[in-house]
Amino acid sequence: MPRDAYSAPLNIENGKIELIHGGGGRAMEQLIDQLFKAEFIKAGVAGNDGTGEGPSHDATLVTPPPGQLAVSTDSHVITPLFFPGGNIGSLAVHGTVNDLAMGGAKPLWLSAGFILEEGFPLKELQTIVRSMAAAAKEAEVKIITGDTKVVEKGKGDGVYINTCGIGHVINQSKIGPQYIQPGDKILISGFLGDHGVAVMSQRENLGFESEILSDSQSLNGLVAEMLEAVPQVHCLRDPTRGGLANTLNELVQSARCDVLLQEATIPLRPAVNGACEFLGLDPLYVANEGKLIAICSAEDADKLLQVMHNHPKGESAAIIGEFVAEKSGDNFQGYLEMETPYGGKRLLDWLNGEQLPRIC
Amino acid sequence: MPRDAYSAPLNIENGKIELIHGGGGRAMEQLIDQLFKAEFIKAGVAGNDGTGEGPSHDATLVTPPPGQLAVSTDSHVITPLFFPGGNIGSLAVHGTVNDLAMGGAKPLWLSAGFILEEGFPLKELQTIVRSMAAAAKEAEVKIITGDTKVVEKGKGDGVYINTCGIGHVINQSKIGPQYIQPGDKILISGFLGDHGVAVMSQRENLGFESEILSDSQSLNGLVAEMLEAVPQVHCLRDPTRGGLANTLNELVQSARCDVLLQEATIPLRPAVNGACEFLGLDPLYVANEGKLIAICSAEDADKLLQVMHNHPKGESAAIIGEFVAEKSGDNFQGYLEMETPYGGKRLLDWLNGEQLPRIC
Repeated sequence: MPRDAYSAPLNIENGKIELIHGGGGRAMEQLIDQLFKAEFIKAGVAGNDGTGEGPSHDATLVTPPPGQLAVSTDSHVITPLFFPGGNIGSLAVHGTVNDLAMGGAKPLWLSAGFILEEGFPLKELQTIVRSMAAAAKEAEVKIITGDTKVVEKGKGDGVYINTCGIGHVINQSKIGPQYIQPGDKILISGFLGDHGVAVMSQRENLGFESEILSDSQSLNGLVAEMLEAVPQVHCLRDPTRGGLANTLNELVQSARCDVLLQEATIPLRPAVNGACEFLGLDPLYVANEGKLIAICSAEDADKLLQVMHNHPKGESAAIIGEFVAEKSGDNFQGYLEMETPYGGKRLLDWLNGEQLPRIC
Repeated sequence: MPRDAYSAPLNIENGKIELIHGGGGRAMEQLIDQLFKAEFIKAGVAGNDGTGEGPSHDATLVTPPPGQLAVSTDSHVITPLFFPGGNIGSLAVHGTVNDLAMGGAKPLWLSAGFILEEGFPLKELQTIVRSMAAAAKEAEVKIITGDTKVVEKGKGDGVYINTCGIGHVINQSKIGPQYIQPGDKILISGFLGDHGVAVMSQRENLGFESEILSDSQSLNGLVAEMLEAVPQVHCLRDPTRGGLANTLNELVQSARCDVLLQEATIPLRPAVNGACEFLGLDPLYVANEGKLIAICSAEDADKLLQVMHNHPKGESAAIIGEFVAEKSGDNFQGYLEMETPYGGKRLLDWLNGEQLPRIC
């Protein structure tokens, strides 16, 4: 190959991922420079302080503010890669940004590790990377380091993306299941089940009349306002895989308190409810990617709800139940129960897992 | 399922990964608790300060020492998963630990993101996780957060592991290609090509008479001693994908200096050389996972070499060449040349990528 071919532009319109793009040589550098870095720099989310330190460095240097950091990682394997309301690129940012926010941290930096399948169209990869860049810009995080690997056709599924995030803990807040007390109220930031139903309807090619969009979005802005108003929030969680019911069951076990929900108060879109009936899903177990559960003392609940209502990402927030002292005494079991509008009670069991595989 | 079945032990001896193990419910928690956390806790590498904060938290909190941090990520997709001298678990630790060390940092914390293929035997996963734990212990890093996803059979290849690492920069050192000067010496920490040849011979089932082991190992201990003795090292790199030749070609481009190597000084095992001839590979382009290139001023070179020789991971270190002022003037090209033992010169081109796919 002549030397000047090294700097030839990538054929993004018609090109495809080849094994050599993961080979640590000039082809990989072209892909990183002309596709990944180009989009991240354009959106102003590349590198540390926008300098976009690249593949000539094995590690990127950053200087954190003093205090505690939160660290969280997620690999994203969602199928299909593109769904109503987002794609794997935006999701990979939202997922990790939200995990940091649930730790009471302001997200600062993300890493991005791509596992690409041979034959994947560069044009689709560019769309995914653009969504990542836009999501990072909106969440005010930088993508400071990355990695690209390629696997043979049939050893992947288009694109898998791992993100690892680092955030700065706000006010050294004490947020975690261990701070939950009997009597604490449970708030949800909005409608449940949108993400799982949007992905499932796309997967099954259902085309519901009123298209349901994934709620995939970053929640760090909402969390910042919540913690500003009520720093003593006891716990924050995003009900992703396994949905509201599995997430609360996990908290029941960690907090060693039962939970009683009020079914009538749980925000659920009629379209999502209808789609769930059609698909045979329980919306309380369906994944969300842009909702949070907040747990706080009964005295703080109304104030926290008001703050959430005043934020565009919390305008449909509701108080949906509370933690109650555990009935079973020494022989702890832990129950998540829900009172129906007719006064009956339904046990929401801790299921083995998400009803839908590869939802995130 | 009866409630007490939730705490049933995993059948590690005969069990396999199922889709439900990535579903965010009780099955995933069992896998994390009984396989991942069990091994990490046993080795003393779990969580922050050994407390092993687990799946009930979305993010893990750590308090870094004051100063700069280095961050680096790598996804590992090596095939086969088990190779002479290591497996994907130990490699996933060594890869990221070494990238941090090459940034002049002391590695502190790793995240671990697993993408598991449905049907993968739990027993093999346990072996991989045990190797990860042992490698983390040896490198004195903690595995502080993780993620588990499962993809359907035929959408992965057993196990892919992403690690993202955070390290503390030693002495605010200025290490990077931009600090390279004409006249700087190039040192290599030991024999080249062991990793690539070990993996390739396993893949092709060649069974060379004297088995060649991968050099996969963490280099942070060696780097710490090198920087203690010669803090003003100009650049450190580990010649992984693309080997010595592609890594030096990258540095030629970043530093805008040519390189002249002396072939007779490059440490190469006769067995590796023979295997490369048999396999049609050039050992200078074959991946290493436990070697480093150090670049320093001519005055510091002998002292640095001595320090490397005194460390078990650098006892075969050698000075193999130097950076020289670029000949081509304004129209920069950048050449990596090698003087043969017979006085001739050979151009080592910047190849498109690694000769062997999925080598790390």
